[in-house]
Amino acid sequence: MRLQDKNKKAAIFHATIKLVNEIGFVAASVSKIAKEANVSPATIYIYHKDKEDLLVSIFLDIQQKKNSVCMKEFDESAPLKESLRKLWHNSFKFVSQNKGLLEYNDQFVNSPYIDLVDDTELMDGFQCFYAAFESAAREKIIKKVDVNLLTAFIFFPLSKLANPRTSGGLKMTQNNIETAFEMTWDAIRLYSQ
Amino acid sequence: MRLQDKNKKAAIFHATIKLVNEIGFVAASVSKIAKEANVSPATIYIYHKDKEDLLVSIFLDIQQKKNSVCMKEFDESAPLKESLRKLWHNSFKFVSQNKGLLEYNDQFVNSPYIDLVDDTELMDGFQCFYAAFESAAREKIIKKVDVNLLTAFIFFPLSKLANPRTSGGLKMTQNNIETAFEMTWDAIRLYSQ
Repeated sequence: MRLQDKNKKAAIFHATIKLVNEIGFVAASVSKIAKEANVSPATIYIYHKDKEDLLVSIFLDIQQKKNSVCMKEFDESAPLKESLRKLWHNSFKFVSQNKGLLEYNDQFVNSPYIDLVDDTELMDGFQCFYAAFESAAREKIIKKVDVNLLTAFIFFPLSKLANPRTSGGLKMTQNNIETAFEMTWDAIRLYSQ
Repeated sequence: MRLQDKNKKAAIFHATIKLVNEIGFVAASVSKIAKEANVSPATIYIYHKDKEDLLVSIFLDIQQKKNSVCMKEFDESAPLKESLRKLWHNSFKFVSQNKGLLEYNDQFVNSPYIDLVDDTELMDGFQCFYAAFESAAREKIIKKVDVNLLTAFIFFPLSKLANPRTSGGLKMTQNNIETAFEMTWDAIRLYSQ
């Protein structure tokens, strides 16, 4: 892709996210997105078959960005708690610094568009994460439960706490972020009864 | 309020929630809401000063419904774990059975409208819940942490797991709901090290 094309594609993504967050998926028409991105509607159709394809591409792009930031220091060979702590702090930083992307994300997963996304595609970036969980469950370090139960306690409290609109006014100092991580760890680790 | 007025008000709430979930806050205009509710726009303005007032009233109404269902069996004098287990199962049932209300709710808390809501109003229904937490923290049964950290680990995993769009295909059997509750309890309870 030429540099100019890359810039245009980025402008379209940026404009779509801005508009969707401001006025929602339905009202954000291709012509409004084109105007906001300062390109012609025809340009959008060069890159994307239709509006659905544009919306899904943006979602996958955000997932990929998020995964690469969160997983960048994830070390499968280190003790799981240490790898997970790094992942937690990286995720927290990403969510705090990319509110617009996450807002789009939240709307997307709660919309019918999510049904267009192949689950396995979403999980690709997390393969080593899942492998680490499986091996920690075998070693009785964490609970042997469905991975969706694990991720519910890892990423959902985080998304509430990293968003000032839902954190109930709690200032997320490094101390509070670390306390929340210890709570996540307690939720998933296995205790000898 | 006369019966007919009650029905009209309910029709307006119902129409607003439906439209907001379908087309978003911005596109859901008072005239579209009136059409959907089969009333005149003037009727809406009898009950609500403006669109903002309508949207906030619905949010508070949903909160109140949710609180009364979740808290209905909450017994401050019982051991906290047992009260919380009932609250968890009641909340799970409410979230599963009222997807439209919760979708509206999620959009609302992520929108600028949430800034119009008085926090203390939201907390009113939960006074006995907060009191039970405080006393359990004093008795070293649960961690002594900010109440927003506690609620992040109680309600956020629940909202992911009760929503089929975000539960990752995990079927929430009674068994899985109970396992998730035990994970919540592990997140908040205090362990002797």
